[in-house]
Amino acid sequence: MDKTYFLLSLSLFLVLFHGSLGRRADRPCQQQQQGQCQLDRLNALRPDDRIKCEAGVIESWDPNHDQFQCAGVAVVRRTIEPNGLLLPSYTNAPQLVYIVQGKVLTGTLMPGCPETFQESQESRGQDSRRFQDQHQKVRQFREGDVIALPAGVAHWFFNEGNEPVVAVSVIDVAHSANQLDVLSPRNFYLAGNPEDEFRQVEDQPRRHGEQQTGRESYRGHGQQQCNNVFCGMDTRFLAEAFNINEQVARRLQGESDRRGNIVRVKGGLQIVRPPSLRQEEQIQQQRPGEQFNGLEETMCTMRIGENIGDPSRADVFTPEAGRISTVNSHNLPILRYIQLSAERGVLYNEAMMVPHWNLNAHSIMYAIRGQARIQVVDHSGRTVFDGEMREGQVLTVPQNFAVVKRAEQNRFEWVSFKTNDNAMISPLAGRTSAIRAMPAEVLANAFRISVEEARRIKFERQETTLVSLRSSRSGSWAEA
Amino acid sequence: MDKTYFLLSLSLFLVLFHGSLGRRADRPCQQQQQGQCQLDRLNALRPDDRIKCEAGVIESWDPNHDQFQCAGVAVVRRTIEPNGLLLPSYTNAPQLVYIVQGKVLTGTLMPGCPETFQESQESRGQDSRRFQDQHQKVRQFREGDVIALPAGVAHWFFNEGNEPVVAVSVIDVAHSANQLDVLSPRNFYLAGNPEDEFRQVEDQPRRHGEQQTGRESYRGHGQQQCNNVFCGMDTRFLAEAFNINEQVARRLQGESDRRGNIVRVKGGLQIVRPPSLRQEEQIQQQRPGEQFNGLEETMCTMRIGENIGDPSRADVFTPEAGRISTVNSHNLPILRYIQLSAERGVLYNEAMMVPHWNLNAHSIMYAIRGQARIQVVDHSGRTVFDGEMREGQVLTVPQNFAVVKRAEQNRFEWVSFKTNDNAMISPLAGRTSAIRAMPAEVLANAFRISVEEARRIKFERQETTLVSLRSSRSGSWAEA
Amino acid sequence: MDKTYFLLSLSLFLVLFHGSLGRRADRPCQQQQQGQCQLDRLNALRPDDRIKCEAGVIESWDPNHDQFQCAGVAVVRRTIEPNGLLLPSYTNAPQLVYIVQGKVLTGTLMPGCPETFQESQESRGQDSRRFQDQHQKVRQFREGDVIALPAGVAHWFFNEGNEPVVAVSVIDVAHSANQLDVLSPRNFYLAGNPEDEFRQVEDQPRRHGEQQTGRESYRGHGQQQCNNVFCGMDTRFLAEAFNINEQVARRLQGESDRRGNIVRVKGGLQIVRPPSLRQEEQIQQQRPGEQFNGLEETMCTMRIGENIGDPSRADVFTPEAGRISTVNSHNLPILRYIQLSAERGVLYNEAMMVPHWNLNAHSIMYAIRGQARIQVVDHSGRTVFDGEMREGQVLTVPQNFAVVKRAEQNRFEWVSFKTNDNAMISPLAGRTSAIRAMPAEVLANAFRISVEEARRIKFERQETTLVSLRSSRSGSWAEA
Repeated sequence: MDKTYFLLSLSLFLVLFHGSLGRRADRPCQQQQQGQCQLDRLNALRPDDRIKCEAGVIESWDPNHDQFQCAGVAVVRRTIEPNGLLLPSYTNAPQLVYIVQGKVLTGTLMPGCPETFQESQESRGQDSRRFQDQHQKVRQFREGDVIALPAGVAHWFFNEGNEPVVAVSVIDVAHSANQLDVLSPRNFYLAGNPEDEFRQVEDQPRRHGEQQTGRESYRGHGQQQCNNVFCGMDTRFLAEAFNINEQVARRLQGESDRRGNIVRVKGGLQIVRPPSLRQEEQIQQQRPGEQFNGLEETMCTMRIGENIGDPSRADVFTPEAGRISTVNSHNLPILRYIQLSAERGVLYNEAMMVPHWNLNAHSIMYAIRGQARIQVVDHSGRTVFDGEMREGQVLTVPQNFAVVKRAEQNRFEWVSFKTNDNAMISPLAGRTSAIRAMPAEVLANAFRISVEEARRIKFERQETTLVSLRSSRSGSWAEA
Repeated sequence: MDKTYFLLSLSLFLVLFHGSLGRRADRPCQQQQQGQCQLDRLNALRPDDRIKCEAGVIESWDPNHDQFQCAGVAVVRRTIEPNGLLLPSYTNAPQLVYIVQGKVLTGTLMPGCPETFQESQESRGQDSRRFQDQHQKVRQFREGDVIALPAGVAHWFFNEGNEPVVAVSVIDVAHSANQLDVLSPRNFYLAGNPEDEFRQVEDQPRRHGEQQTGRESYRGHGQQQCNNVFCGMDTRFLAEAFNINEQVARRLQGESDRRGNIVRVKGGLQIVRPPSLRQEEQIQQQRPGEQFNGLEETMCTMRIGENIGDPSRADVFTPEAGRISTVNSHNLPILRYIQLSAERGVLYNEAMMVPHWNLNAHSIMYAIRGQARIQVVDHSGRTVFDGEMREGQVLTVPQNFAVVKRAEQNRFEWVSFKTNDNAMISPLAGRTSAIRAMPAEVLANAFRISVEEARRIKFERQETTLVSLRSSRSGSWAEA
Repeated sequence: MDKTYFLLSLSLFLVLFHGSLGRRADRPCQQQQQGQCQLDRLNALRPDDRIKCEAGVIESWDPNHDQFQCAGVAVVRRTIEPNGLLLPSYTNAPQLVYIVQGKVLTGTLMPGCPETFQESQESRGQDSRRFQDQHQKVRQFREGDVIALPAGVAHWFFNEGNEPVVAVSVIDVAHSANQLDVLSPRNFYLAGNPEDEFRQVEDQPRRHGEQQTGRESYRGHGQQQCNNVFCGMDTRFLAEAFNINEQVARRLQGESDRRGNIVRVKGGLQIVRPPSLRQEEQIQQQRPGEQFNGLEETMCTMRIGENIGDPSRADVFTPEAGRISTVNSHNLPILRYIQLSAERGVLYNEAMMVPHWNLNAHSIMYAIRGQARIQVVDHSGRTVFDGEMREGQVLTVPQNFAVVKRAEQNRFEWVSFKTNDNAMISPLAGRTSAIRAMPAEVLANAFRISVEEARRIKFERQETTLVSLRSSRSGSWAEA
């Protein structure tokens, strides 16, 4: 019967889930101020708010910033200390998480999916027959992983490593799956008494007047005693629903819990999982794409992560210049529902990512390490950003705007979250560029240069996307 | 030649129709007031407006209410007296109709589809050879049926039973198929001189100041003499288009017709249809899914309805607590275009639908019978609704908000219209709940309870979704 | 190795491109003023702005007009003189171009697609081995062709004929592929120093107060020296990116180029292309649908145009009344991504296109030749347009509004751009009409006429969509 239940719920879920997200694409819209996005001036931004929790810190960028509003996203960085547990929650919009550092154990709670991780009968004590634990699959992620979380699906994170976990999330509030509203990411917590991660939205209902920075608080809520989804329900109802007594029911509501969104687990988490999980994961990462087939691709056991930090995983690689790895719906199918993708880049010192535009997506860049000089140009040739971008900063490069990145003094590493599950760039220079796609005669006439010069503009750069500036200086005809 | 025409128009239609609805998903957006939906406070609402017609009544809920604006829907209830005909019309957005009571005959006018119901030559009198009638398929629906009507496709309803037909419609004005505008459902009538079913929109161009209730009027229009789509055209043009004289053309415009949207058909409707339609329908309803294959699934003869009122059709059934039936795009394929689905529920006295959230849809509840205590909780733990819901009222449960329903004193019956063709719920208690999907250790740490208590919270409730409160009281460890 | 590169980049592109456009359907929304489109009054409009260039003229309709805002489109007409080159550019939204007159050569620059047009080694002089030219496919279009251009994909046009090319474009700014903003089409130029084609948007940030017409200017820009995407970048960066010297890099930025958006190519364009291109195209147009299969349907060589001007291509043809040709995603598959379609119509003198409504799209009509009397009616029977439409004017017929067209004095020719890749009309009279789909008894009761009159209304018109008024006058029962 349990087998039947398994299969029934599995197919039920598949039937329900498949094609259900991202189909209704008409709810939100973000550019409210006369339908015009003010993108005249971009900034590389640090977080505006900071929430200190028992076992970690949550830093958020104000979603009211023009560059986030126009892109329809919200950005948050969570630092989870060893043995810290980010309480289970779900969000009104899909999100993509990049693990900048550390090792994390995560569970996503898919309604209708079976509890496939089961405690053995021997492992428990006296009343093991009565309440033997079983739960849904848990997954381990590590530095360089991108994790896709669908809207409305609850999840928790636990740091099982020895160093803090740093995770950057981009929440796509403008996604069709968010039917609620537009500007504000909303986290619904299933437990505890957590702080709203985007307090700026609540505080400033209209528009951000002055920008608040570095505001720090330790949960000291005044008016309301609790915050999670059980909090607003009658204790009696909860007792009835779970068939427990009201005293325990009251614990669900998390009143007077002052630990915040990230809580400390004493002695670490003892949960059911395959003993070789860690090893298996490592094997999988060495041979990506090989282990997954058949039932693996169903929603309940669907792959939700992919590593793009590993150098051997590079999609574009120029030995002197750097590398780029991308994850999109073709190598991580769940992104088809999420409609987001990501790019992980490394630029060596004195190397450049050639001028290009994002054909079909906004790009929300997070600087992981080092610094770079970046220029962004709009449709009328105006420079809307021209400056340094440093570790920990976020910069939005709007769709279709031209952008050029150049590592200076240091190696530069970044991750870009893109608002399309198959984001494309169109380079302006190099082997795959728009310039090279045009006849030399068209270039000559467009730029008022000779056909010979046009040919040089087309063919002098053989590299794709990434170029080293040191190698090209010597031996170039340009100096001749 | 007629056969050829049939096939040509059929394939033309298929070609045109398939994939054409719901693809362009970018037009409307509903939350205009600074992109923030005001969902701090919900209400169980009765209709705000009432139009009395010759053979029925149309009651509409003001679409300017926050809960409807945020969900992007409009709600209307039509009561059609026996022999009443709801005049042919189409709407700028798709709608889902639930037949609360009665028997209705309906025709949907699909452009390009052939007239497959043909009068026999014997049945008519003198000039039968010249104008033998033929028309598109008509369908019969009854209590418990959900009917899907695409945007822009005209349709008519006729009450052929002995009791009034009561039909509740939810119009999805925020649907991508509506490229016109956002707040206002617009009915385009092909005949008569009907009243606008949502007069509130026209009356209050900005926002609803005070709420008008119970306003009743019998069509006494001042400025304009007619209302249907022919009304605004030159009588001469109409005469030319139909090749009729201007006197008849003027009848198309419906001037001085004071019967309203629902007119009385004296002596009932004598139309061409298979004599055993009623019996056939009943056979089909007993064996759903069996009769449909091949050409049945083409657009012209596509199934547009499904019964979810029949108790034997239940998808979730707990003998002591009640039942739930759902219709989605997997059992009614046209919903893939409509992107709506529905749930019909019955809760016995002292039973509860466990706390849950709507994962990917808003839920617009209509109370069919009885009453229930309902609580709705937002992302910050605030109770945005806590009260009774009674027969005839409408309540919107926003996406992701937690909700619990409890029948008190009476059995409670409802239908929920959901803004996703595969709406999913995520229960918080019971066999398929998010709580059960988590390891007991995670729960223990999240709720600051013992692992033993966590196990009880997970496993005390074995039921799915619906629980009886009487049975669980006795024999529960909670009282121990 | 080049072959491998070809295949790799081809499949890369396919992988990237397929399904990537039009999936994210949630960004824009256009009806900002309280969510209500003001469509009480439509006008047949002439262009509001005019930019004179070295070798042509660009005329644009103010996108702030209610009828364009509500439909979410922008309209522009470009006249390119013989040997004129419209500089390469891309737009933040997809567009459909109709060639009203002339012959045009065009290149679309698809990132990742190979340069498949290669110069032969013999054709060049001394340094041919070093910089032999190769570029992406170029295509030739002529009068009557519809060309589909995806958002963000750069393209150029060159007039290689002897008469001016006249091209009308509708840009679908409300399309999901445009994540930037709503009201404003944005052209990003890759070369030259062009004027913004929609200066009205920039000039009037809020709403159009008084309408400016006929404003004419020859590029005399004050504040900024250049306009293209290279303009905002450091000259040094460009030199590095292309591996050229800074002097040439400065030419890319187009400073002090006063030729405008359309430049003159002295002596015509000498580019690599198959000598029989013109003949091949003509063969293809005679046998549409036969030449395309296999690799032809990949994105890199995808058909992006279809002729609907040729009389032999008619989809609806009534010898006495006229003809209609349509192009949709079923005969031009790229339109599935663009989500636009088009209809080309010819109405002979004293002929009528029967009253009908656009079921699932707005229709943006451009009058090519002649004039017609047109009436448009809204949902409440109001006539929102009743007047003449003449050559060169644009009129938007909103979704679901009823419309009737009648050629008077002259033959009338038009092209309608529709905001759905499979736009459908639902005629009110004739063989495929909604009226005919209803039982005569329903009509009789709806219109308060006899069943006999209802039958005549249904069956007197046997034509589909187009009717001649001369032929029907005589011999009609209406006069009897």
